[in-house]
Amino acid sequence: MGYQAFTVQDAIERVRTLGLIGNEPVTAEEIGDGNLNLVFRIHAGDQHLILKQALPYAKVVGESWPLSLERAWIEQSALKEFAKVAIPFVPRVYHASKEEAFTVMEDLSHLTIVRAGLLEGEKYPLLAEHIGSYLARTLFYTSDFALGPVAKKQIARQYYNPDLCDITEKLIFTDPFYDAETNAIEAGLEAEVDRVWNDAELKREVAKLEALFITKGDALLHGDLHTGSIFASADETKVIDPEFAFYGPFGFDVGQFIAHLFFAAYPKYDQLREERIKDIDTFWLTFASTFKALWEREAVEPFRSADGLVEDVLSTILQDALGFAGCELIRRTIGLAPVADLEQIADPTVRLERKRHALRLGAALIKRRTECKTFTDLRNFDVTEELSR
Amino acid sequence: MGYQAFTVQDAIERVRTLGLIGNEPVTAEEIGDGNLNLVFRIHAGDQHLILKQALPYAKVVGESWPLSLERAWIEQSALKEFAKVAIPFVPRVYHASKEEAFTVMEDLSHLTIVRAGLLEGEKYPLLAEHIGSYLARTLFYTSDFALGPVAKKQIARQYYNPDLCDITEKLIFTDPFYDAETNAIEAGLEAEVDRVWNDAELKREVAKLEALFITKGDALLHGDLHTGSIFASADETKVIDPEFAFYGPFGFDVGQFIAHLFFAAYPKYDQLREERIKDIDTFWLTFASTFKALWEREAVEPFRSADGLVEDVLSTILQDALGFAGCELIRRTIGLAPVADLEQIADPTVRLERKRHALRLGAALIKRRTECKTFTDLRNFDVTEELSR
Repeated sequence: MGYQAFTVQDAIERVRTLGLIGNEPVTAEEIGDGNLNLVFRIHAGDQHLILKQALPYAKVVGESWPLSLERAWIEQSALKEFAKVAIPFVPRVYHASKEEAFTVMEDLSHLTIVRAGLLEGEKYPLLAEHIGSYLARTLFYTSDFALGPVAKKQIARQYYNPDLCDITEKLIFTDPFYDAETNAIEAGLEAEVDRVWNDAELKREVAKLEALFITKGDALLHGDLHTGSIFASADETKVIDPEFAFYGPFGFDVGQFIAHLFFAAYPKYDQLREERIKDIDTFWLTFASTFKALWEREAVEPFRSADGLVEDVLSTILQDALGFAGCELIRRTIGLAPVADLEQIADPTVRLERKRHALRLGAALIKRRTECKTFTDLRNFDVTEELSR
Repeated sequence: MGYQAFTVQDAIERVRTLGLIGNEPVTAEEIGDGNLNLVFRIHAGDQHLILKQALPYAKVVGESWPLSLERAWIEQSALKEFAKVAIPFVPRVYHASKEEAFTVMEDLSHLTIVRAGLLEGEKYPLLAEHIGSYLARTLFYTSDFALGPVAKKQIARQYYNPDLCDITEKLIFTDPFYDAETNAIEAGLEAEVDRVWNDAELKREVAKLEALFITKGDALLHGDLHTGSIFASADETKVIDPEFAFYGPFGFDVGQFIAHLFFAAYPKYDQLREERIKDIDTFWLTFASTFKALWEREAVEPFRSADGLVEDVLSTILQDALGFAGCELIRRTIGLAPVADLEQIADPTVRLERKRHALRLGAALIKRRTECKTFTDLRNFDVTEELSR
């Protein structure tokens, strides 16, 4: 049974054959954007399912390039791995097929995608805390600190994900820092972008972050943890789409989430800035305290007994995360895959000002990340004043 | 054809079947120490060969534990990989069998093992330069900087070597830092060893170096680069035995070699110290200048264009290397597998003094490694004075 892209009818037949629905009437539709995956929503009786199938190519802005189907298997495996240690925050998986590159999981339609929700003024009072807990658990439990190096190596070798890592390397660490075709630079932003391209220190620090991304295998990362990969409500949070999962540096997921909380403030900056900064505070404090508690309870020797090590590990995670957040801020402002948080600002003057702000903030985070010994140091990173001069 | 440990007769038959020798009279003997491998030296006519076969266990101090035969395949592959980029410094391989876990290579009997040679007063005027060049080439060419991340990931995944990495993790980073059974602590050294065990800062820094060893996949390392893994003469240098090869941090091989140059001074410290420090100088300068030249000529974009990046990479390699050198100094002084450089010092007072020196130097290198921005800073690391107080 080889791979073939499903029609709606194929999707229904699969879940029926699997016994996930009976013979009751079914409604089903394809709801994906068709760029990387097919996504079918299937309702039958009380059963609400999502069937997601990988496509053998990626389509971005009309361009199409081939992409390994293996990422479906990576996503399935990562969902299961994350569910083991952070079950409240991971969608339930009912079936996974490697051969046909599809996964059947719970339908999360009762929740909203966080980016869209925040843009519409929705509140997610537990989001920051939930993601802090989710990341502390997924990162700690898949690391050497919990597994020991031998078991961890056995797991890590299953998560080579060269295709999707390559996309990240190009789109986050490379293309935004020179005049690449993939960039999408709004007219009026050229002078600010030139500042980025001519900043030798910035480019060196980005190259160091890229090298870290490529070579450090601390833990199993989600790999694409922006607010579009999170479903939530006032009391529930689910992280979806870990197809970019791989063994990478602790700080990467942490940094991406921080970057997108910054983005979430831009539509109404004066009003939302404090709220989002508080979210970042809560997120980091939850992450750090949970990680530390897990460490103290469960880290394998000899790590646990090394005095002051976990504090040092957390301080390194923070610094790396701020650097990665800076890269994400820059790439989502001028690179491929811009964010609605900026693009939907109607007033062009305001929009350009916020984009300049994002670029400045990104550069500051990248270049000054090692100044942050504790999270409160981040409050000194406001570049608003610098921009108004 | 499954695996079976060879007799001398089996070894002769294999090389004959392979056409590596003809029907001329053969002399052959097993010359290994039988702890991890069988090593047969086979002479027939003009042909001088070594056949090395992995044993399915490791024997150390009477203890025996099972060990995967896959390491023979790792060693064969690493020898071929290193030969591609550093051919003058790698023994020629004539045949490699994964199934029977053996490799046939050139006999290097015209050279001497460097540790033994140095102990007998032999000079290797080109050793430091050769190993500097060897490591610059093997580390650079197997890294992301030369291969790019996609190709590198494909190679790296072949070098998972959990068994042997586990040995290193235990014997270098863990056991010497607490009262482990594997340690071999000479009577009279207890007070100095207690200093090590009670030094919380030292133990934290060792744990950080261990985490680096476990998680950072910069380049294909030799993994066990001490002076017993090097054959040399006045003008030739060959690095053997890369069965510990894996993708690890740049600084590890560099640090191990530095540690063993330090050890080589201990038999006649007053007389040899300057000479060995000069070797370390030469080694590092050759390594750094070769690495930098390769980078400038051959690093893939975007790394090459990042201003000041290679200097930063080299400075990180140096600091990590000094930390790893410190760990190696400590473990070879009080852990399993002590070095002849110390053990063969006949006068017990002198021997204990040198061992104390090695422990102090090791701890200083580990704790103060980040003070070294350039290699000349290392000259300030003389702990002799501290010990005489």
